[in-house]
Amino acid sequence: MSTHDDNAPKEAKRRGFLKAGGVAGLAAALGAASGGTQAAAKPSHAPDARDPMAAAEPFFGEHQGGIVTPQQSHAYVATFDLKTEKRDELVQLLRDWTAAAAKLTRGAALEDYGQTGDDAVPADSGEALGIGPAGLTITFGFGPGIFTHEGKDRYGLAARRPAALVDLPRFNGDQLLPEKSGGDLFVQACANDTQVAFHAVRQLAKMGYGILQMRWGQAGFMSSARGQTPRNLMGFKDGTNNPSTQDRSLMNQFVWARDEGSAWMNGGTYTVVRRIRITLEHWDRMERGFQEQVVGRHKLSGAPIGKQHEHDPVDLTATDKDGNPQIPENSHVRLSNAASNNGAQILRRAYSYNDSTNFYIERWPPWRQETEYDAGLLFIAHQRDPRTGFIPINEKLSKLDMMNQFTTHVGSGIFACPPGAREGSFIGAGLFEV
Amino acid sequence: MSTHDDNAPKEAKRRGFLKAGGVAGLAAALGAASGGTQAAAKPSHAPDARDPMAAAEPFFGEHQGGIVTPQQSHAYVATFDLKTEKRDELVQLLRDWTAAAAKLTRGAALEDYGQTGDDAVPADSGEALGIGPAGLTITFGFGPGIFTHEGKDRYGLAARRPAALVDLPRFNGDQLLPEKSGGDLFVQACANDTQVAFHAVRQLAKMGYGILQMRWGQAGFMSSARGQTPRNLMGFKDGTNNPSTQDRSLMNQFVWARDEGSAWMNGGTYTVVRRIRITLEHWDRMERGFQEQVVGRHKLSGAPIGKQHEHDPVDLTATDKDGNPQIPENSHVRLSNAASNNGAQILRRAYSYNDSTNFYIERWPPWRQETEYDAGLLFIAHQRDPRTGFIPINEKLSKLDMMNQFTTHVGSGIFACPPGAREGSFIGAGLFEV
Repeated sequence: MSTHDDNAPKEAKRRGFLKAGGVAGLAAALGAASGGTQAAAKPSHAPDARDPMAAAEPFFGEHQGGIVTPQQSHAYVATFDLKTEKRDELVQLLRDWTAAAAKLTRGAALEDYGQTGDDAVPADSGEALGIGPAGLTITFGFGPGIFTHEGKDRYGLAARRPAALVDLPRFNGDQLLPEKSGGDLFVQACANDTQVAFHAVRQLAKMGYGILQMRWGQAGFMSSARGQTPRNLMGFKDGTNNPSTQDRSLMNQFVWARDEGSAWMNGGTYTVVRRIRITLEHWDRMERGFQEQVVGRHKLSGAPIGKQHEHDPVDLTATDKDGNPQIPENSHVRLSNAASNNGAQILRRAYSYNDSTNFYIERWPPWRQETEYDAGLLFIAHQRDPRTGFIPINEKLSKLDMMNQFTTHVGSGIFACPPGAREGSFIGAGLFEV
Repeated sequence: MSTHDDNAPKEAKRRGFLKAGGVAGLAAALGAASGGTQAAAKPSHAPDARDPMAAAEPFFGEHQGGIVTPQQSHAYVATFDLKTEKRDELVQLLRDWTAAAAKLTRGAALEDYGQTGDDAVPADSGEALGIGPAGLTITFGFGPGIFTHEGKDRYGLAARRPAALVDLPRFNGDQLLPEKSGGDLFVQACANDTQVAFHAVRQLAKMGYGILQMRWGQAGFMSSARGQTPRNLMGFKDGTNNPSTQDRSLMNQFVWARDEGSAWMNGGTYTVVRRIRITLEHWDRMERGFQEQVVGRHKLSGAPIGKQHEHDPVDLTATDKDGNPQIPENSHVRLSNAASNNGAQILRRAYSYNDSTNFYIERWPPWRQETEYDAGLLFIAHQRDPRTGFIPINEKLSKLDMMNQFTTHVGSGIFACPPGAREGSFIGAGLFEV
């Protein structure tokens, strides 16, 4: 994460000026941010590499943040359905969101809060004041509904829909809930503090009042890991075999869209989100050996079955003394491995989620009616093209993966995340260029 | 939080021995813990005051942890309904839970995980391995159902029900959901990592398989606050006027039960839990001045209205130039203040909760049907006697508090949390003494 150490006094002066002048209405404040002066473009908190709350990520750039950015500990992901049919209102919303996001990634701003007099709704709701930028990134995406909605081309964008933004097919075992799926606009906020991530989405949602309606939101987290690969709620290390975000050529090959499709998506990516509930009660009662056969890795070390170390290469040809594959045919690791999928790779950026409990009626063995954990995986995958990425991989997994006994996909979405915005421009500007 | 710095080598030796010997089945491991040797009673991670994951809280003692313990950043609270009718099974469960809790508070134990061979269900589900104790406390309580259940005295305990463990009355505006309320047994796990807190409850729940059924679970968090009072989801500092846990005489007066009632509760406390949903969308659209009138404090500073500093005393008699009370009659701060409640005080230990979103049909203005945040406050209050604590305070609040426009109590529970256990004994032992 980037930090800045040369602007604290300048920043303090700027804040003092704004406070003294009392100019902090929403329009004024956002104008100052999107105007893009050097001072405004820098984080408003003193840097401290040991303090994850002080970390600040740049908003503007070639690519959006939150894709190859080292993964922050918390996320809040939301989608919105557009209610307006006016192209201009959509463009203005994206301009406003861009300015707000640039600002939010520098930390909740005191001048947005409460210098406007008692009778005004403050631009900022205040619950993230004083925490710091916390490494916040905000990533925006467009769902299929922005191009065509119930057969209607609301914004004159139908012809610009990228071929790669397909409607996801129905996968085997899908139990998708409409209130946890889809959406015209996608916002992924990631930060090192849960309240900072949620705050960002609340701010953006509020700004869209009257133009859009929230469709679903989802909070996620990663456990602490002391520098190791974090364990997901199944107790296994998750993300070991992810392509390295440090490897530009890998990212160019598998993550960043280029000029093969819609030019406005050059430098963007396609994002698939799945809310995957895990029946943890059931999983917790399974033998260790069986769990490892399901995953294809040893639980403690994270090593592929038969290997010693987490990062030992996955050898799909290795056999045991009886000639059986060491990594089982129906294990998650084998089925999702690039070698099983014509070399396909996706960049997973998943979080665990924990929405407490619900009373469920399970229609899958073991049949039961009871209070269960409403917890699992907020699966997020970024990729250059879902037609060669998530879709074929999940076609295979949904039919064959032993893990399906414990997982249910209850939410789903696919989004075209455009490239990063230049200062002075806005997110997705290329889509609207005539 | 307490830390220990003298036992790391001893602890490492003990773990090495257990690993080498391969004795790590659940019974053996728990036996070692409850045996209460000095080595076993100490945390298994190197201490580091700057590392909240290395902090360890003692489990055994005069009082249970998690009551006056400085508040950790995360919580997972759960209740369970007992299915067994056998007193012995209940006692054995409490013995097992005590031993497990003593162990868990020293950090997820490697020897509980996976040294038992492939064909065994590991004692530990593994997802908290390597994180550290993270300041974990586990607090146990007894709900009314342990004394009488559907008119039946299942365990011969009916006569020992403390008078202070009343059934909560129905409060004005209550919208309680059965699947978020009640419970025979209460577990409050608090830690500096969300996965550590949840892991503790998962472990305890798994141990009760066949004897009990989870009734509800609830995850909670506090935002980072850089040493300041944390802000709740309404953006206000929360907890400013809480009685100081450093003040033993205050705690003895308001928190710890003494010999005024059931002797087995001497040194325990009574805990009320309320799941309070907050309509954040609605709140976020209110003027700042109105929000402050509702709360009775300034939002930015946290000071009582008319004062400058957060910790300035609340003066309920102060009037403005027109002779009106500075702190409004129906504000939350006035109505909940000790001076408005015959001096009553409770120790709030609340967390925010964020269970993402749900589709709601709102039957309260502004009427609407839409996806809304399923977020709010996991209110937890510890007190010496709810009849002079939470109940009269909430009777008043539920009728008069302006904040009720934005809050709905959807879950509720009341529990008798016994004193701490001595090593070699178990939680609630006094209740079962003949």
